[in-house]
Amino acid sequence: MNDEPLGAGRINLDALYQVIQSRREADPEESYTARLLAKGTKKLAQKVGEEGVETALAAVAEDRAAVIAESADLLYHLAVLWSAREIAPDDVWAELGRRFGTSGLTEKASRKKP
Amino acid sequence: MNDEPLGAGRINLDALYQVIQSRREADPEESYTARLLAKGTKKLAQKVGEEGVETALAAVAEDRAAVIAESADLLYHLAVLWSAREIAPDDVWAELGRRFGTSGLTEKASRKKP
Amino acid sequence: MNDEPLGAGRINLDALYQVIQSRREADPEESYTARLLAKGTKKLAQKVGEEGVETALAAVAEDRAAVIAESADLLYHLAVLWSAREIAPDDVWAELGRRFGTSGLTEKASRKKP
Amino acid sequence: MNDEPLGAGRINLDALYQVIQSRREADPEESYTARLLAKGTKKLAQKVGEEGVETALAAVAEDRAAVIAESADLLYHLAVLWSAREIAPDDVWAELGRRFGTSGLTEKASRKKP
Repeated sequence: MNDEPLGAGRINLDALYQVIQSRREADPEESYTARLLAKGTKKLAQKVGEEGVETALAAVAEDRAAVIAESADLLYHLAVLWSAREIAPDDVWAELGRRFGTSGLTEKASRKKP
Repeated sequence: MNDEPLGAGRINLDALYQVIQSRREADPEESYTARLLAKGTKKLAQKVGEEGVETALAAVAEDRAAVIAESADLLYHLAVLWSAREIAPDDVWAELGRRFGTSGLTEKASRKKP
Repeated sequence: MNDEPLGAGRINLDALYQVIQSRREADPEESYTARLLAKGTKKLAQKVGEEGVETALAAVAEDRAAVIAESADLLYHLAVLWSAREIAPDDVWAELGRRFGTSGLTEKASRKKP
Repeated sequence: MNDEPLGAGRINLDALYQVIQSRREADPEESYTARLLAKGTKKLAQKVGEEGVETALAAVAEDRAAVIAESADLLYHLAVLWSAREIAPDDVWAELGRRFGTSGLTEKASRKKP
């Protein structure tokens, strides 16, 4: 399902994660990703929260191009946070598989929250 | 790059988007996705903002399983928001390609913000 | 400065904090505040983050009544968070005094962030 | 209730709002507040959402001084947003009075949300 090759010039979340992993050991002077990782989890978490807010605001402002750009920002910072916490995209795809897989006859979109 | 088939039981963001699209016309009584879409952009935007906050808090609390679960929540609600705004994952992969593609010798991780 | 009495039916942040403090020991079955406090800091922090997002969305949607209502929600949950962390409003007024007080000839609105 | 004078060096939310109002017409080159107001509602809304996230993260990190500092940031940006939307603190105190006033025998902490 949905395994056709990525089109030219496209980078999906798995590919983006590979880019980020390749920069983990880069010189922070030369790589924004390496600088972000050096700042630690709290700063990365803050960026994810902030980019979520900005994506939301772009959507309410009905600015389609801004929603795409902010979504890209959000996914990038999310993937850097995953890298910092030793989480691979496949861990999240497995979680989504548990919720939305063909074996699930009913939709389990959202975990029950306390 | 990174076009190997998804493992069994995995659902990535492209596949998740297809699931969501298939439920756009579903009965809101039976589909959480259809109910969310019926609530409109503002409610969807709010969910994206809130899930960004929850992912951030899980990361700072150093709860790896919660980061995975909240990331799944965040990606699901983001993909529903894309569906509502007529944005396909490929639009975002193209944006990421412009920033991180092989032609980009320097990293352009983050758009300049005003 | 600005010490005139509160008008009838008004509750400012200091008064709200006193209401919250008075309910710290209340039966959680009867008091929403006591129930919130019982859930702990992480849940309270999440509410503050979420109400900040909702206030922002109401403002962008140009819904004045919603901005007032969401601001009230935000201040209430912020004050409960303060109560949980043993912070009094006066601690925050002292911080604002350091930044905006008459002795400060220049504006120091925002701390330098790393 | 709670109308004792502010202590020396204290600035509460009403006093902060007066400071902000006094800077509405200031030269943006000299006043951070005037610069913020010039950027418009969307930028101000974004700041409120971001500061809510930062306050939440400081609380979860159990950093009391940071919660106080981030709360001051949040209240400042909230008050600038109010100024931009022609909302006075008294509008919010009236809303809180309706929810928490002595006439309210039961607690109405949070509006019903859709």
